Amino acid sequence: MKGALSQYLPILEWGKHYNRGQLASDLLAAVIVTIMLIPQSLAYALLAGLPPEVGLYASMLPLIAYGLLGSSRSLSVGPVAVVSLMTASAVGRIAEVGSMGYLDAAVLLALFSGAFLLLMGVLRMGFLANFLSHPVIAGFITASGIIIAVSQLRHLLGVHAHGDNLYEILLSLAEQASHTNLYTLAVGLPVLIFLFWVRKGLQPLLEKAGLSPFAAAMVSKAGPVVGVVMTSVAAVAFDLGAKNVALVGDVPSGLPALRLPPLHHEAWQELLISAIFISVIGFVESVSVGHTLAAKKRQKISPNQELIGLGAANIASSVSGGYPVTGGFARSVVNFDAGAETPAAGMFTAIGIGLAAIFFTPYLAYLPKATLAATIIVAVLSLVDLSILKKTWDYGYSDFIAVASTLFVTLVAGVESGVACGVFASLALHLYKTSKPHMAVVGEVPGTEHYRNINRHSVITHDEILSLRIDESLYFANASFIEDRIYALLEDYPHTRHVVLMCTAVNEVDLSALEALEAINERLGERDIALHLSELKGPVMDVLCKTHFLKQLTGKVWLSQHLAVTGIVEEMNQHKADNTENWDI
Amino acid sequence: MKGALSQYLPILEWGKHYNRGQLASDLLAAVIVTIMLIPQSLAYALLAGLPPEVGLYASMLPLIAYGLLGSSRSLSVGPVAVVSLMTASAVGRIAEVGSMGYLDAAVLLALFSGAFLLLMGVLRMGFLANFLSHPVIAGFITASGIIIAVSQLRHLLGVHAHGDNLYEILLSLAEQASHTNLYTLAVGLPVLIFLFWVRKGLQPLLEKAGLSPFAAAMVSKAGPVVGVVMTSVAAVAFDLGAKNVALVGDVPSGLPALRLPPLHHEAWQELLISAIFISVIGFVESVSVGHTLAAKKRQKISPNQELIGLGAANIASSVSGGYPVTGGFARSVVNFDAGAETPAAGMFTAIGIGLAAIFFTPYLAYLPKATLAATIIVAVLSLVDLSILKKTWDYGYSDFIAVASTLFVTLVAGVESGVACGVFASLALHLYKTSKPHMAVVGEVPGTEHYRNINRHSVITHDEILSLRIDESLYFANASFIEDRIYALLEDYPHTRHVVLMCTAVNEVDLSALEALEAINERLGERDIALHLSELKGPVMDVLCKTHFLKQLTGKVWLSQHLAVTGIVEEMNQHKADNTENWDI
Repeated sequence: MKGALSQYLPILEWGKHYNRGQLASDLLAAVIVTIMLIPQSLAYALLAGLPPEVGLYASMLPLIAYGLLGSSRSLSVGPVAVVSLMTASAVGRIAEVGSMGYLDAAVLLALFSGAFLLLMGVLRMGFLANFLSHPVIAGFITASGIIIAVSQLRHLLGVHAHGDNLYEILLSLAEQASHTNLYTLAVGLPVLIFLFWVRKGLQPLLEKAGLSPFAAAMVSKAGPVVGVVMTSVAAVAFDLGAKNVALVGDVPSGLPALRLPPLHHEAWQELLISAIFISVIGFVESVSVGHTLAAKKRQKISPNQELIGLGAANIASSVSGGYPVTGGFARSVVNFDAGAETPAAGMFTAIGIGLAAIFFTPYLAYLPKATLAATIIVAVLSLVDLSILKKTWDYGYSDFIAVASTLFVTLVAGVESGVACGVFASLALHLYKTSKPHMAVVGEVPGTEHYRNINRHSVITHDEILSLRIDESLYFANASFIEDRIYALLEDYPHTRHVVLMCTAVNEVDLSALEALEAINERLGERDIALHLSELKGPVMDVLCKTHFLKQLTGKVWLSQHLAVTGIVEEMNQHKADNTENWDI
Repeated sequence: MKGALSQYLPILEWGKHYNRGQLASDLLAAVIVTIMLIPQSLAYALLAGLPPEVGLYASMLPLIAYGLLGSSRSLSVGPVAVVSLMTASAVGRIAEVGSMGYLDAAVLLALFSGAFLLLMGVLRMGFLANFLSHPVIAGFITASGIIIAVSQLRHLLGVHAHGDNLYEILLSLAEQASHTNLYTLAVGLPVLIFLFWVRKGLQPLLEKAGLSPFAAAMVSKAGPVVGVVMTSVAAVAFDLGAKNVALVGDVPSGLPALRLPPLHHEAWQELLISAIFISVIGFVESVSVGHTLAAKKRQKISPNQELIGLGAANIASSVSGGYPVTGGFARSVVNFDAGAETPAAGMFTAIGIGLAAIFFTPYLAYLPKATLAATIIVAVLSLVDLSILKKTWDYGYSDFIAVASTLFVTLVAGVESGVACGVFASLALHLYKTSKPHMAVVGEVPGTEHYRNINRHSVITHDEILSLRIDESLYFANASFIEDRIYALLEDYPHTRHVVLMCTAVNEVDLSALEALEAINERLGERDIALHLSELKGPVMDVLCKTHFLKQLTGKVWLSQHLAVTGIVEEMNQHKADNTENWDI
């Protein structure tokens, strides 16, 4: 009973053994992650088209909820780039940016998303995430990175470009480029260059200066905070607001009010569909990070428990005025590298963000939006990895088609369509391949009991025995293909008296395939050719034994291909000997 | 070149050798099929909600078009039950029964359907039909039979019942039952009983009377014509029209005018979707019949050429004022049994129907609709086969779910939804199964080189070697499942130093699975366990050779599981001997 409870409340497990050493590690990690998260939360809220404080709200209660229910010890939950982009796109379809309805819709989206994740978790549907292949994930993350980076250029230039896909955004940017606010650019461009340098060049420099690699890495994570402080100071000093440089402006100070989001939003059906997509994408991102980090420490995460943890986090985000959250890649890696040992690190981070929300917000008024845009661009460009195209191109056409179609459709039609298209393409290609399975005529590798493809190995065959290996389960989609293939092969092997189907790769025989086998058995029988099966697996044999097929079979079922061939040869010799005897008499 | 041409125009092939014997056989078959087709065409037009002459029109030109282009020698093309039901449902959604728009829409549906079939044929997409499993086909045919039979009861009772699904039709029938026209019932019920008797009892009786089984079978096919003639005579004799018995009424006499259907119909998008469904269903019905009949004569049909033949038939139907057609089951079997040798039989049938349209239509005015309804009921009840439920229940849950969901959804929501649901369910179940593949720890069957499941066979194993057979291709949907399973198994086999993955059933390794294998290799390496692969198939080996994986592999790739185990044991002994030597020194 207690085991079952701690399965659903992982905190009972790790909390029992919590010690001072872990506390110290978790606190250090929390400080580092808090410093990194403050500019990031503001920036992602901007990306989602929401007021900056919403980013902070989404970084408090969700961390506590996930800490209580999540199964990963290192995951850091909060606003992330792709989900922010998807939120902007989903909410933008039904409300104007900046309007009250827009914020309400985003909060509602988090509620729906949380409810859906919880439902999936209770129904133990975590396995569904497996249907997003690595190429599809790589494709939509790279495409999202490109879209986000390009869309943030307008804040860097201080123009009002907009658009629903890459082409529209680029066109709009090109049109607006002449209206560039040079003061804004003078703030944004240096910050962008500074942040790129921090990411690439600062850490080695600090290490040279004598810092430990760990300290150097952690200090360089604070780069965005330096950018925030410097540009805010510059904005005050040069009165940039008066020069039309967009600033964050007044941010309400204090903690969010807890309230249920308004449920009367008219377009809730459309929001629900978007919430499903956001949930799935967020879950997949979170689980991939969680798996990677857990593996490094020989820990495990449970996908179904993750669904519950993320569901609770999203509901917590919603009731505290936040928007959809998930386990972010960058922040989780920082949390892990900073030494977080338990989910308590996340809870301490929540407290850190809370303190920032209470004491720090007045200073945000002068923060230029261009600084946040630069933060986003630097963060998302690290997600862009076009080498996956080359890699899949070299590897195989179906992976390439999956990644290319996901990438392309995401760029022109958004993440939801891109992912849907990628999943559909990869499943369709997989099914297409299994519907036309590889089949090999096999023969004995000399000196062994092993049978291999006659076209790839020099093997021993018998004129009267056609040994055929079917490289796929037999099911409705390939049943008639296999039937036709066998008849066609018999024309190439006219002396065949025995066909042995080597079923090493046959993991299933469904009813359609059974009917095809019955038809093959009957038609071969009419031509006086016996049908044999070899190496049938246990589960397949169990199913076939329930039918009449094995009784109707003109040949036999053999344990192995070798036994089949030697057995048939023996029978034929016996038969020949019998005939000779008869003839003698 | 000539071979290529006759591939697309099968008539060039069989026409070359056409002889007097074939002509005689084809003519006889044509006479029999014509007699059978006349009432059937009228009845199916009634079922589709169309004027009776439309059924005749759909039985002329389409037969000639199919005869020129189709690849089956016995298929008889024309109106069929399921397609008529689907036409009624598709057209009924956008037009009132009996209105001019209704007829236009049905004609347009045939045009779209024909164009779609042609397109599929040119793109060689015939393989798509394989994705309709036998249980799905059985499910929707049985459900359609039930719906059609029940819906025709209203004509038998002479009431105005209607509804979009079985429940609504039954409810409406129950409400209207009190308005039953007893004269109508007095016509319909005897015909119904007569037709059932003809189907079951007449043939044995005729055989007893001395007719050959062939003649007896052919004469009993004329049963519906007898019903038509008798009830028409009765209608005139007793002036049933005045007693509110619904009669067919005036039917325009002569051949249809050739014209392009009006393309200005407003709801063409909805029609297009229905046309796609009708095409697919019609194609599947046609190909199954075609395959069955061709196999009996050792002939072959080409699915892609069938698409072209059926496409041409539907376009021909459309330009001559007909509605969607396909290769029907009952009529094709009659055609085959009556001795049709070539598609010329179909062309002669077309001429027969044409003559009937010219000379016979005036006599149809007095034909009671109840007679046609009885014809339909008797025909479709032979399609109803609920035993498939029991058969699949015994066989396996996924086939049962496919048939039950198709049957149920077709009954409550129509053929299109039913088939879509069935295809989705069967694909989803197949993918689900492959996402959680069977894996077996295997050992050597004593005295052989064969390796089988340790739980099913008494086999020889080694403590330090874990031989694991994976019963599925490795692809994105099962990559992480397999990874987790291997780690879990290692906890059960703590002495393992070598893991050998026996890849007899691995027909593919996609990029996601390759990444999983790399992760497994690395994590096993950290624990000082070597990863080996055995029995990799040629195509899989080709793909892996293009990557760095085989170089990173901590173990080796072995030709067979037996070579792997003996090789590893030898190496371990060698190693032990080496260590002993070192220790000695």
